[in-house]
Amino acid sequence: MVFSKVFKLFTTKALAVPTRGTGKCNNKDSKTNENVVPLNEIHRFIRECFEKLGVKKENALIMADGLVAADHRGIFSHGLSRLEPYLNDITNKRCDPNACPKIMMESASTAAVNGNNGLGAVIGVFCMDLAMKKASETGIAIVVANGSNHFGINMFYTERAAEKGFIGMAFTNTSPVMVPAGAKDVCLGTNPISISAPAEGKDRMVMDLATTAVSFGKIETYRRNKQQIPLGWGLDETGKETTDPELVVKSRKLMPLGGNVSYKGTGFALMVECLSGLLADAAYGPNVRQWGQKTDKPANLGHGFIAIDPEKFPAGFQKRLSDLLNYIRKMQPVDPNQPVLVPGDLERKIMEKINKQGGIVYTPTHMSMVEKVSKELGVRTVKFK
Amino acid sequence: MVFSKVFKLFTTKALAVPTRGTGKCNNKDSKTNENVVPLNEIHRFIRECFEKLGVKKENALIMADGLVAADHRGIFSHGLSRLEPYLNDITNKRCDPNACPKIMMESASTAAVNGNNGLGAVIGVFCMDLAMKKASETGIAIVVANGSNHFGINMFYTERAAEKGFIGMAFTNTSPVMVPAGAKDVCLGTNPISISAPAEGKDRMVMDLATTAVSFGKIETYRRNKQQIPLGWGLDETGKETTDPELVVKSRKLMPLGGNVSYKGTGFALMVECLSGLLADAAYGPNVRQWGQKTDKPANLGHGFIAIDPEKFPAGFQKRLSDLLNYIRKMQPVDPNQPVLVPGDLERKIMEKINKQGGIVYTPTHMSMVEKVSKELGVRTVKFK
Repeated sequence: MVFSKVFKLFTTKALAVPTRGTGKCNNKDSKTNENVVPLNEIHRFIRECFEKLGVKKENALIMADGLVAADHRGIFSHGLSRLEPYLNDITNKRCDPNACPKIMMESASTAAVNGNNGLGAVIGVFCMDLAMKKASETGIAIVVANGSNHFGINMFYTERAAEKGFIGMAFTNTSPVMVPAGAKDVCLGTNPISISAPAEGKDRMVMDLATTAVSFGKIETYRRNKQQIPLGWGLDETGKETTDPELVVKSRKLMPLGGNVSYKGTGFALMVECLSGLLADAAYGPNVRQWGQKTDKPANLGHGFIAIDPEKFPAGFQKRLSDLLNYIRKMQPVDPNQPVLVPGDLERKIMEKINKQGGIVYTPTHMSMVEKVSKELGVRTVKFK
Repeated sequence: MVFSKVFKLFTTKALAVPTRGTGKCNNKDSKTNENVVPLNEIHRFIRECFEKLGVKKENALIMADGLVAADHRGIFSHGLSRLEPYLNDITNKRCDPNACPKIMMESASTAAVNGNNGLGAVIGVFCMDLAMKKASETGIAIVVANGSNHFGINMFYTERAAEKGFIGMAFTNTSPVMVPAGAKDVCLGTNPISISAPAEGKDRMVMDLATTAVSFGKIETYRRNKQQIPLGWGLDETGKETTDPELVVKSRKLMPLGGNVSYKGTGFALMVECLSGLLADAAYGPNVRQWGQKTDKPANLGHGFIAIDPEKFPAGFQKRLSDLLNYIRKMQPVDPNQPVLVPGDLERKIMEKINKQGGIVYTPTHMSMVEKVSKELGVRTVKFK
């Protein structure tokens, strides 16, 4: 879900915020409330920006839900930072924000949807809801989409499924930034995979990860901090492994997950292609466009969504999952100050912190963008808490 | 699919063969044919060993198919090397080799099967065939099993699906050897994932990998060659990363895939648990027994099998997959002497080599085991080519 060129064009500065997995976020407790933006206020701002460009209310709502969900979880690379690129896609007519997804073909447990070059998140929600509907009847369903655009964080869809009691999985292909194991050049995307599964009560497992070793966001963070990156994350322009984040930012060449066993990350990225772009008849692999490139060609991204109904299996799935998650959480940690986390715990902790402080503390870069967009579109700027 | 204690009990010597991913196998062209065992001959031997212990013909056949399939692909850790542990499970009555898998509950696209403590591969074939049958009607199906035993290589099942035109996926939990990210002790298995997908003609993608960084087999190889292992593969007894393979063989603590981003491998291992042990109501996580431990408790392993029918999606999936695989194969390699491979190519090359030389060249360790078992059971030993 990281797009190479886009960072150069739009968000190099906006990336000056932490990314997931670092365990840090910008939401330090502020002594004053000056910088805290309540969730409903940033949601209102995003929604109104889309509406101002003629996007219908229900679609603007989904876009705001998706972007705020990312920031709320500390995934700042996929929240408000992405507002401008999305708006640009609409004003440049690279995307048709009011297009309706259409089912091209379906069977009892499958559907292939044409997104008609609509908004990625609108298509994603349509597909995941359809997968859940089918799965509630047959036990499992897969819905794929072509003709789509960037759809934000995968966990937005899988958590939607888990909230309703399903195991949800989401896959998407993305612009090529991954160098397959043994090759010199890029050909596959970060091709993220997410699975969310309901545990007891409100507990759940929420995994969402790129099949590259890391995202560009993380490499940018190392560059800013003037730290070397470990081997296994990125390559220089000649295709050689490097510890210099500068060279990777320049080459736009990420390594597959696995370091010296990177054929595994390559395999996972191809698994994602099978379950998204290839099944859906979307663009795939090297054919996926770089986001932000000047082109009239629609993005034609491919996504895949699976829903599984645990009720069709031996009773107690949620209890068993909670038991396993809690066992892991209680394990002795390597660092006594860092309890062992299961997938989704980090994001949940960040959400709790943001809820407690009454909103999100955005960076000055975010806020200048908000001011700029506010003036350009004539949308009322955000009010701090 | 690597079981910790078993290596101490049975196969430390048998592991003196290369494992998958090294790109090497024991099948050097031999000047004489003395050491070459034809595939049908080793298949006959394995089958007769099972039959001698009272295993019914069709089950013995599946076991021989599975073990020979592994050796044929160069995955020597999961072929003939595993014959003795399987036979021991039968003689020690830890497994009921003639038990029939039984469907406990099912819906249009799902089934939960009780393996009744039968042979893992027999249960696996039953489940994958059932998944294909259901998927041919509804487009996708998932079948899970509990009450199972070690089922060999995952790709045995997914290739079976791909041969019949389906995308096949297989997941299994295994004995705890993985230390989750941030923890000090083991709790999850190597929890492998496989996906096979049909491409044009006889081409296909076949991915099968452990969600640990590597298997113990690979660490054993480094130990034998007196090489240091890279950081990110294993931990010493105190839970500290080490480059000394000796310490990892002793601690039995493998790291999740991802090296310094090992939360990703942990996430994948948990995904596998969700889709196998937890859904199936089998043993899971830390509750899975160590293979070979003296216990009357059945293994109760959990598996999951998914079949997807590409015919229910926009036409041309196979063509698109071939196009992508061939693009990658033709990419400029880092090492001019090592063409870029896609998942499954390495195994295919080894199969071709073995077919050309008329059989498999086993190690002396393999052959002594064959002689020993042959005498013990009164089964005619193998004839070389």
